[in-house]
Amino acid sequence: MYQRNFPSFGSAIKAGIFCSALIACTFASAAEQTPLIIKEQGSFAAGGSVATAPGAFDPRKPMDPAGQSYHGDHAYAFYEIPANARKYPIVMLHGAGQFSKTWETTSDGREGFQTIFLRRGFGVYLVDQPRRGDAGRSMVETTIKPTPDEQLWFNQFRIGLWPTCFPKVQFSCDPETLNQFFRAMTPNTGPYDENVISDGIAAIFKKTGPGILFTHSQGGGPGWLIAIKNANVKAIVAFEPGSSFVFPEGEVPPPIPSAFDTVKGAAVPLDRFLALTKIPILVIYGDNIPDHPVDLPAQDSWRARLEMAQLWRDTVNKHGGNVTLIHLPDIGIRGNTHFAFSDLNNVQIADLVSTFLAEKHLD
Amino acid sequence: MYQRNFPSFGSAIKAGIFCSALIACTFASAAEQTPLIIKEQGSFAAGGSVATAPGAFDPRKPMDPAGQSYHGDHAYAFYEIPANARKYPIVMLHGAGQFSKTWETTSDGREGFQTIFLRRGFGVYLVDQPRRGDAGRSMVETTIKPTPDEQLWFNQFRIGLWPTCFPKVQFSCDPETLNQFFRAMTPNTGPYDENVISDGIAAIFKKTGPGILFTHSQGGGPGWLIAIKNANVKAIVAFEPGSSFVFPEGEVPPPIPSAFDTVKGAAVPLDRFLALTKIPILVIYGDNIPDHPVDLPAQDSWRARLEMAQLWRDTVNKHGGNVTLIHLPDIGIRGNTHFAFSDLNNVQIADLVSTFLAEKHLD
Repeated sequence: MYQRNFPSFGSAIKAGIFCSALIACTFASAAEQTPLIIKEQGSFAAGGSVATAPGAFDPRKPMDPAGQSYHGDHAYAFYEIPANARKYPIVMLHGAGQFSKTWETTSDGREGFQTIFLRRGFGVYLVDQPRRGDAGRSMVETTIKPTPDEQLWFNQFRIGLWPTCFPKVQFSCDPETLNQFFRAMTPNTGPYDENVISDGIAAIFKKTGPGILFTHSQGGGPGWLIAIKNANVKAIVAFEPGSSFVFPEGEVPPPIPSAFDTVKGAAVPLDRFLALTKIPILVIYGDNIPDHPVDLPAQDSWRARLEMAQLWRDTVNKHGGNVTLIHLPDIGIRGNTHFAFSDLNNVQIADLVSTFLAEKHLD
Repeated sequence: MYQRNFPSFGSAIKAGIFCSALIACTFASAAEQTPLIIKEQGSFAAGGSVATAPGAFDPRKPMDPAGQSYHGDHAYAFYEIPANARKYPIVMLHGAGQFSKTWETTSDGREGFQTIFLRRGFGVYLVDQPRRGDAGRSMVETTIKPTPDEQLWFNQFRIGLWPTCFPKVQFSCDPETLNQFFRAMTPNTGPYDENVISDGIAAIFKKTGPGILFTHSQGGGPGWLIAIKNANVKAIVAFEPGSSFVFPEGEVPPPIPSAFDTVKGAAVPLDRFLALTKIPILVIYGDNIPDHPVDLPAQDSWRARLEMAQLWRDTVNKHGGNVTLIHLPDIGIRGNTHFAFSDLNNVQIADLVSTFLAEKHLD
């Protein structure tokens, strides 16, 4: 039921499967007991806006905004650079409702992609996007309501159909794991705005220099714009981009309805779109995505998104691009949720990414 | 004008001054060029509440809260444990409007207390308190407004009197430093609540085991409650606690008015208060705090806070406690802002803290 066409990864995938075992031997099993050697670590804000209220500031009236300034809409990054780092660092951008935690310790307490890729010699920059988490100062007012929504996310993130986990899902469904998983969410502190987000993270790439962008879910949409805005983005690895695929004007495919919502492509001028054809892009989707419409919104939303992702891959490649889309079950990797990079088999997923980076000479 | 009585630190201070040079040689200047050896790093949520909406969850109506849960009011921590770590890790809690960044890279790009104390062999846990930054899920609704307020903070944090920096202030007043400084703020995502905050961070101490608590400013108030709630807090280093000093019932001193606000002590039952007499506590205040009332709210607020801190020190010590209060100018250290731990002389300040920890056999 969940079979799809084998993606155009060719021999690379087969090589990837074999290399996986090798890489697991080389990096993971040997290194995960050894200390991290960190040459440098730190944090900074990048991008953003400044507003100043009219009038003159009076130090005797400090609560009066007159003449006072407000900095907001920046991105925030915490980075670690290992000793003898590889050429390109990796900037990791979270998805909807998430923050840097996405890439840190997994909900069941294992190492996430932050530490796994540090061990593999990459500098790693973890981002909180503008108006989220530690980048909370927003230029636009918002109200945050504690609306119960976690069964939605349990289903939408394809852990299972609440309260039951999918059979053989790559997620530990014990209570403390779920507790940590739900507490890895944090709200928007301003309206979601792809332009503000992509401006902020494009500014991070000014500080990092040439690097690789990892995105997750909702971060996929800003991710395409970041690469369009800053040529320092030398490759993208997108985990389950959820919306906002950009197409050249006049080539946007028809919307794809689903039981959850309707997935639409977005138009950008051709010359901007072509930036996406200049860099290798790997797109990864997990398991339990149906291959035909179903009346469960969570599952059906991913059917529609995967369909749009395939149309997008074909469009970029038609224009000379280099997009590889892997639907994990097609290469025999089963049980992955929406968070393949933190799933129980995340070292195997990291091996797949490492193989891609090696083949594209990005490591 | 800014002279105060020499605090009751006795020979410890003089030893501290001499040791500073030694420690600087041993740790900082030699080590700051060498890599960090990190045995383990990661992140987790601790504490918090859960609410569930009445009704039954319908997977076909995912946007309907009925039967759905909501986890919030937890604290979040990112930790790094060096190889051959000392006995007690340090948990670092930010102040008002701030987040973990307080202890990370300074606004002018130097190492903050996170990395300085890692280099000195301590495990370091950086916290975002409940309803702040990456611990953003709040159980209570709030509205966040982008109100210009940065000249207030420039003055309140005693960098200077806007737009002029204090003479010889330990802060680099160049534009990019100020840009980074203002972007190190992030709003409350729910109402400020000391009980919620101290519950969350007391839960972090359940995960760390016995450790040392560093607090800054507004974090001082929850800090006392954390030590009362969890005996794993073996010492506190409080930088410029700004309010909410707790006294035994019946011993709360009269409020101290200032040109900014009125500083009040808070009453707790004596048996709870006595927890604060069982651990060594170091309280540090910086420079440019007047010793008599002035009509500038920012400066005068710190005069009143320092006065209350001295009354609090005397009360804890009268009950058998072990509080040392250092007003830095009294020991010849000048120019410090409200953020001594990230000021230009923060290695010297770290040396002072290291001396305290050594004398109390906490390292």
